[in-house]
Amino acid sequence: MSTDNGTPPNHEDGADPNGLRDSSDYINPIWIERLRAHLGAHDSAELMDMMGPLHSADTGDVLEALEAAERFELVKQLGERFDFSALTEVDESVRTELMELLPNADIARGVSGLDNDDAVFILEDMEHGDREEVLSALPTFERLSLKRSLDFPEESAGRRMQTDFIAIPPFWTVGQTIDYLRNEEDLPDEFYQIYVVDVSYNVLGIIPLDKFLRSYRQRRIQEIMNANVILVDANEDQEEAARDFERYDLVEVGVIDESRRLVGVLTVDDMVDVIHEEADEDIKRLGGVGDEDISDNMVDTVRSRTPWLVVNLVTAIVVSMIIGLFNATIEQMVALAVLMPIVASMGGNAGTQTMTVTVRALAMRQLDGRKLRRLITREMAVGLVNGLIFAVLIGVVTALRFGNIQLGIVIGLAMVINLIVAGTAGILIPVTLDKLKADPAIASSVFVTTVTDVVGFFVFLALAGLWFGLF
Amino acid sequence: MSTDNGTPPNHEDGADPNGLRDSSDYINPIWIERLRAHLGAHDSAELMDMMGPLHSADTGDVLEALEAAERFELVKQLGERFDFSALTEVDESVRTELMELLPNADIARGVSGLDNDDAVFILEDMEHGDREEVLSALPTFERLSLKRSLDFPEESAGRRMQTDFIAIPPFWTVGQTIDYLRNEEDLPDEFYQIYVVDVSYNVLGIIPLDKFLRSYRQRRIQEIMNANVILVDANEDQEEAARDFERYDLVEVGVIDESRRLVGVLTVDDMVDVIHEEADEDIKRLGGVGDEDISDNMVDTVRSRTPWLVVNLVTAIVVSMIIGLFNATIEQMVALAVLMPIVASMGGNAGTQTMTVTVRALAMRQLDGRKLRRLITREMAVGLVNGLIFAVLIGVVTALRFGNIQLGIVIGLAMVINLIVAGTAGILIPVTLDKLKADPAIASSVFVTTVTDVVGFFVFLALAGLWFGLF
Repeated sequence: MSTDNGTPPNHEDGADPNGLRDSSDYINPIWIERLRAHLGAHDSAELMDMMGPLHSADTGDVLEALEAAERFELVKQLGERFDFSALTEVDESVRTELMELLPNADIARGVSGLDNDDAVFILEDMEHGDREEVLSALPTFERLSLKRSLDFPEESAGRRMQTDFIAIPPFWTVGQTIDYLRNEEDLPDEFYQIYVVDVSYNVLGIIPLDKFLRSYRQRRIQEIMNANVILVDANEDQEEAARDFERYDLVEVGVIDESRRLVGVLTVDDMVDVIHEEADEDIKRLGGVGDEDISDNMVDTVRSRTPWLVVNLVTAIVVSMIIGLFNATIEQMVALAVLMPIVASMGGNAGTQTMTVTVRALAMRQLDGRKLRRLITREMAVGLVNGLIFAVLIGVVTALRFGNIQLGIVIGLAMVINLIVAGTAGILIPVTLDKLKADPAIASSVFVTTVTDVVGFFVFLALAGLWFGLF
Repeated sequence: MSTDNGTPPNHEDGADPNGLRDSSDYINPIWIERLRAHLGAHDSAELMDMMGPLHSADTGDVLEALEAAERFELVKQLGERFDFSALTEVDESVRTELMELLPNADIARGVSGLDNDDAVFILEDMEHGDREEVLSALPTFERLSLKRSLDFPEESAGRRMQTDFIAIPPFWTVGQTIDYLRNEEDLPDEFYQIYVVDVSYNVLGIIPLDKFLRSYRQRRIQEIMNANVILVDANEDQEEAARDFERYDLVEVGVIDESRRLVGVLTVDDMVDVIHEEADEDIKRLGGVGDEDISDNMVDTVRSRTPWLVVNLVTAIVVSMIIGLFNATIEQMVALAVLMPIVASMGGNAGTQTMTVTVRALAMRQLDGRKLRRLITREMAVGLVNGLIFAVLIGVVTALRFGNIQLGIVIGLAMVINLIVAGTAGILIPVTLDKLKADPAIASSVFVTTVTDVVGFFVFLALAGLWFGLF
């Protein structure tokens, strides 16, 4: 997400006790204290000595290690020497907060030096009015190019692409191209392949740099280019593009617009971030938290978590009403109240196991029809086998604990039924959500545990009521 | 994980109804049926027409879409034309099964054409005896190079590295280097940077290809090289190396051995796989499943899930014993049994939310001392605020449902306490596990929900007993 315009620390030399990172790879508190001292003393030469050599990823981590007021102070004191691409490396809440404090004129100056993709990343979350103000302060060419990227949908390839790339005609020779590359000043900072295009920028082929380097000067580009090219539509979701990168081991790919003109390129470093974000999103959604960061404040955190807890409260009340149906049964045999959470809890866990595997398989597009049928069969069988194992275990424990073999049989039966239900629900619920175009990671958890709770309590209490004639 | 030696399908043209993938990016059943027909007819020309043009990633997906017997049949019929690098793209269980069916001589022939890293990936899971047999059938140079990689620890950079790279002396000129690249036959398939080394292969600097391409022929290598190089120790964990790639947007990095000699290179495509695997591992561990794939059979699945369910059974029994303490209380007031799962369930969910955020922050090395203190404060505050919100909600619902305001107050109090406990446990448990060098993703879930269950049931029942004088 950033240009490689700083120096990463050299890890393999072992951690310097006064260096930027400690031996566990965390930002070193000693380093931060030294920075703080210079910040307090307004010693901008020393500040620059410390911050200047940093890679933007490290600058981002330093910003995150500071308090909010210090971050603004640091950016202010560094002035024009602050590397705005570091803003692409911090949590959204840190970026938003800092951007709100900074004057729009400073932001315009800061982003105008950046790669197109970094600038878009920083501008896309700004409020409309502020963003327009920043854009209008930029040089025309840059403004138009940024506006164009911002016109593509959020999280699309068009938003993540870099608009600088190398495009040459097919009739050039290798020698001509090398001379062009050596003499042209305005080239992208980094590139991994050369695009061969016709006059209307339709892509005819690509040449990876290693292959290009090994070709003789007199060869024609069209003879050495690879005409079988993967291209990505600018409107395509970034996640789909990332899947192509992962599957086909790509390093760079061309992005085309509706009229099939080459408008930019995606590079693997941005896709690595996307892959990481998407996995992170899945983990958080499965855990019942939204798009939150550890830097979010308390109010935002409460706001993002409450909806999920409300849903859980409603389902918990439903479960409690199911138990309420067996009021009289429990009154006659309090042991049931003591035992009932065991069946529900085991079902919840078994269901979560199946659901986790299913959600991952869906996210990675592994579940075609045949595999789905296999998975359903397997999970029901696993539910049955685990059900039998744990039925015997809990049956024996219960019989011994309450001196009541029949109670052991009842809880064992309930266990088998609930674990089969757990396996089935754990797979059918995420698959159904996926078919309905909903994200299975978001809602599967709550549905699965509701099913296993309802079935767990109901089956156990109903079986016990019938067996012991308590109705 | 594989060389780019096949043609990926061109997505942006829209899905061909008879093509390899359908519109949702799954392997097309129609395509597979056609392949099956050729397989049945032993029509090797047609088979090759279908399989030949595929990228190894697609070949891998095709293998997974077939039944076990068909996979072996396909590999057998393709013979020497089967692309062994596809084996790096399939689930471990599919690979293991296929490898056991294939004669070691075929495996030796298959891996001998592969990149070093792909060959290691395929060989590392083989049984010792079989592996030695395969290795001894390989040409000396290849055998030694593979053995060397296999000597590095599992999941280390040394295991993932590619041992082909371009190393040149610092006193060469750009022109000399270009001529060498053009004339030398035995070069890596793909490379993104050139390594500058001294006589003992110590790295003096690197030159990215784009920078190299733009330099004039007469320039000396040592003038244009970047002497500030990131290198990775061959014994370093692949996950740490992947973190460097992600943080510093790397595409390729040199790997050095104990004596600091350059022994190989890591490329970003392999690191993308590592990043994905690690995230996947975290998700599965949080969901209580081990290293399992959807291709695993039923017995393996039961085996991998049972330990977790046993742990859960034990904790569920402990929780049930806590409830058992309040036998007499529940007997006097059955409404308590009906309500008690609500407090526990809300605590479990709130605790899981906090734990998820903490586990992710730990995995991404985001939690230094200051952030940890901030997070603890925030989570306890979130617990208090959410506790108050849900105390009022459940208090009102309970008071109305049972016509008992005092019962509403008791459950509300229990809710506040349990949600604060949930926030605290959700953060302290994973952090403690991390400090003890245990993986917080594995065991946090069970500890957190045990704490919230125990506290939830105990506090609610004890408060009710005290309030209503039921002891």
